[in-house]
Amino acid sequence: MAHTIREKGKILARVNRIKGQLDAFSKAIEAEGDCYQIMQLLSSCRGALNGLMGEVIEGHIREHIVEADNKKMAIQSGEELIKIMDSFWK
Amino acid sequence: MAHTIREKGKILARVNRIKGQLDAFSKAIEAEGDCYQIMQLLSSCRGALNGLMGEVIEGHIREHIVEADNKKMAIQSGEELIKIMDSFWK
Amino acid sequence: MAHTIREKGKILARVNRIKGQLDAFSKAIEAEGDCYQIMQLLSSCRGALNGLMGEVIEGHIREHIVEADNKKMAIQSGEELIKIMDSFWK
Amino acid sequence: MAHTIREKGKILARVNRIKGQLDAFSKAIEAEGDCYQIMQLLSSCRGALNGLMGEVIEGHIREHIVEADNKKMAIQSGEELIKIMDSFWK
Repeated sequence: MAHTIREKGKILARVNRIKGQLDAFSKAIEAEGDCYQIMQLLSSCRGALNGLMGEVIEGHIREHIVEADNKKMAIQSGEELIKIMDSFWK
Repeated sequence: MAHTIREKGKILARVNRIKGQLDAFSKAIEAEGDCYQIMQLLSSCRGALNGLMGEVIEGHIREHIVEADNKKMAIQSGEELIKIMDSFWK
Repeated sequence: MAHTIREKGKILARVNRIKGQLDAFSKAIEAEGDCYQIMQLLSSCRGALNGLMGEVIEGHIREHIVEADNKKMAIQSGEELIKIMDSFWK
Repeated sequence: MAHTIREKGKILARVNRIKGQLDAFSKAIEAEGDCYQIMQLLSSCRGALNGLMGEVIEGHIREHIVEADNKKMAIQSGEELIKIMDSFWK
């Protein structure tokens, strides 16, 4: 996965941040904390995960479709992106 | 816009269906109809518009990125897609 | 639909704006316009429709759940909202 | 947070599953795995997190708005929901 090799560290740091947010969410649930705060924590996770999804998809477009080694691989990567995005239009 | 030339009729039919759904929504608002029904109408419009967005983006990936005439145009179309999708990750 | 009676004119104006945006989209498709511009038009419609959905749902929460005439109606309006939002979590 | 007290175990199990999915994602990034598989992992996380968000919001509607102890608290919980959902309409 060429584009994530290059951006590997950056992506791993973002995932770790999301895991930390989920830990905070779990702790708030366990402590029976305030519901609004709990929803805010989850909403932040959701935003962070969406942002990461966007980052990974951008890399896929740039490096696996536009910069594909050959037409056959560009077609395959294009169809992969279409399948991944399918759930966004539901 | 090559891919919508080919699928022009199909896309126009989908837009007309969405306009019809919005007309039904306007009428229900004017008639001060049932709120649940009104929310369902709007939710259907939203689903239909998302589906259309998916269709147009699929065409863009296949015909303007994967099948671009040259690398320069593939890069441009790829960047356009990234800009359009930017709002999905918010 | 109490809350849209109060805000009827405002909501109808927003729907009309979205219809106008869809007309511009149809014209661009018919004229075989630039694909990026076409995607931007559709993306604006989508944003405007999402905003309208948010407005209608806000009214529903405030006037049909929080300000329901009685508990039975609050329960019904709450369940209606849950059903409408179900598609957002897919 | 009454509704999550009742459903505490269920919600914690869901969060743990999402953390497990994020671990699988991190490992795939570290191993420089196949990009399509990586996007699928992230897409599953996103779906699971959306589902959890829906679950928490449903509990909030049922127990903190509809079943609020008094009108003042119903209003507050309603406004909290509106603020949380604000990001969905962008």
